[in-house]
Amino acid sequence: MRPYNFGAGPATLPLPILEQAQSELLDWEHLGMSVLEIGHRTSRFKQLISDTTQQLRVLLSIPDDYAVLLLGFPARFQFGMIAQNFLRQSADYLVSGVWSKLAFEEANRLYSARQVEEGSHLDEKTDYVYYTPNETISGYAISTPPKVGQNRLIADMTSCLLSEPIDINAFDLIFAGAQKNISIPGLTVVIAKRDFLESAKVDVPTMCDYRTHLKNESNYATPPNFAIYLMKLMCDWLAAQGGLTVMSQLNQAKAKALYDYIDESDMYNAYISPQNRSVMNVTFSLKDASLNSAFLLEAEKHGLLGLKGHRALGGIRASLYNAMPIEGVNALIDFMREFSAR
Amino acid sequence: MRPYNFGAGPATLPLPILEQAQSELLDWEHLGMSVLEIGHRTSRFKQLISDTTQQLRVLLSIPDDYAVLLLGFPARFQFGMIAQNFLRQSADYLVSGVWSKLAFEEANRLYSARQVEEGSHLDEKTDYVYYTPNETISGYAISTPPKVGQNRLIADMTSCLLSEPIDINAFDLIFAGAQKNISIPGLTVVIAKRDFLESAKVDVPTMCDYRTHLKNESNYATPPNFAIYLMKLMCDWLAAQGGLTVMSQLNQAKAKALYDYIDESDMYNAYISPQNRSVMNVTFSLKDASLNSAFLLEAEKHGLLGLKGHRALGGIRASLYNAMPIEGVNALIDFMREFSAR
Repeated sequence: MRPYNFGAGPATLPLPILEQAQSELLDWEHLGMSVLEIGHRTSRFKQLISDTTQQLRVLLSIPDDYAVLLLGFPARFQFGMIAQNFLRQSADYLVSGVWSKLAFEEANRLYSARQVEEGSHLDEKTDYVYYTPNETISGYAISTPPKVGQNRLIADMTSCLLSEPIDINAFDLIFAGAQKNISIPGLTVVIAKRDFLESAKVDVPTMCDYRTHLKNESNYATPPNFAIYLMKLMCDWLAAQGGLTVMSQLNQAKAKALYDYIDESDMYNAYISPQNRSVMNVTFSLKDASLNSAFLLEAEKHGLLGLKGHRALGGIRASLYNAMPIEGVNALIDFMREFSAR
Repeated sequence: MRPYNFGAGPATLPLPILEQAQSELLDWEHLGMSVLEIGHRTSRFKQLISDTTQQLRVLLSIPDDYAVLLLGFPARFQFGMIAQNFLRQSADYLVSGVWSKLAFEEANRLYSARQVEEGSHLDEKTDYVYYTPNETISGYAISTPPKVGQNRLIADMTSCLLSEPIDINAFDLIFAGAQKNISIPGLTVVIAKRDFLESAKVDVPTMCDYRTHLKNESNYATPPNFAIYLMKLMCDWLAAQGGLTVMSQLNQAKAKALYDYIDESDMYNAYISPQNRSVMNVTFSLKDASLNSAFLLEAEKHGLLGLKGHRALGGIRASLYNAMPIEGVNALIDFMREFSAR
């Protein structure tokens, strides 16, 4: 049996996707070449890009006045790119963890930004409000988008996009690195209101300008072919599972089972209080912190991989993205119970 | 038999590399996970990065005062990034084709740059001299680095790096997109003098600053794992072929055979005059241009793919990167002879 990989990203992929990629790696759709080897200006590859964005539109019910961009950059690159495009006077950054803090620092280093806390008034006119609904490192989640009045709202959904249905209309720009719930690293998905993208500043380097990618249908420079191909397979797989409402129910059930066990046990402590607990990244530690290493070592022997918490926080982190089946969560809970009993 | 793919990039990969990637796609080195799924901060993945850069160092005899960076960006992103880092007053761009022209335009749009022609004096003090030894679209090559006196020299080697041994000391910064001779799209290799990188401007966005990637050993943001893995396989494969001197001899022989046949035939015209002919991208057309479409269609039926010239130029382009065996070139020549006879 395949071990369960709870790593926070690059994360586990559904086995049927890996098997399909494997089976057609030498010859994609009888074209006599791999998807790795096909020209990005061929009609077949352009079709792959448009099929993939179309599938995403269906899964997330993306309205027509929103564009979908597939960018061949790391997610983190968005920290600077957003500020380069949209930050004129100031912007409000709701800081709820490491990633939102880093995004704030980059914007504030390049221009001038304001760090705000949850509960702050965000309806005062500013270039945009930025937040991170799911902080991957701490597992801190903000489940309802902040009220921003007439302001633009930007969300870093790197570790939660595609884990549940969302109301796209609440946002002006959403981005997500692909290496959690979407595909592999090297691809960032951007969903943004077209009029917002068109309102960007004019002095932006060409490849940092969202309009370049909009105009060129995500094919300005050679796109990351394999990441886009796997994203297409992932979208197909999600549709076959029943779509995002079904995935969300499964994800809620997975997280609830694990948090419930942690709360009832004497051995483990969840890091985050109930109202802000992430469904994707469950963080906890052993009450006796000296046992963390033994726990991780034993877990590996039981085929439970990638549970080490982020170096900034320590402890344990179990990432429960779409590709993690409930059986994996049950196996983890069984192991935790057994480890606790010893 | 596998068809021969002469596409300019994403380009054909050596079959043994595809087969190895296929065989271990579900389980990399018995770790119980795919190389697509492993955390980028794990010691095993960091080892992959350092093994890959080390292999490149050996193949190209890269001196210790040069850094090797593996960047998760498209090659074209370097056009802006180079200017952002190094262009203060002005820089000289030797324009020899579409790509060097685009690089010049981007630098000149953001700052101020000077377009120069071959044979110009390039030793007058400037921030750097930039050129493109192999223009992928036209197949125009400049085989000897320009004399730049005390100036820094930057080269876009996207379509020729690893095709032959080079004297790294002649350059201050070399970059190459991976989708030709190195790996798949989504990865750009940078080889640069450390003191040049350290001399960059200070107001650069964090991810556009070469020092960020130098300091973080190409692991600042989640790196493009599959592209790096395939680059490692490619470096191993090149070493097993005998290294770059052997590859260069093979590449010269492949290109010579094709150019010789074109020159002796009544049917075909090479675009580029002999002293500037690319060894990597052979461009030509049928003397009767109305036959181009029939040629391409017939070639496909004979298992000769990707021969359509770039849309900016038309005609035929045969890219003969490392992964194209001499048998492929011979098959192409045989077909051309047969097509000519009809």
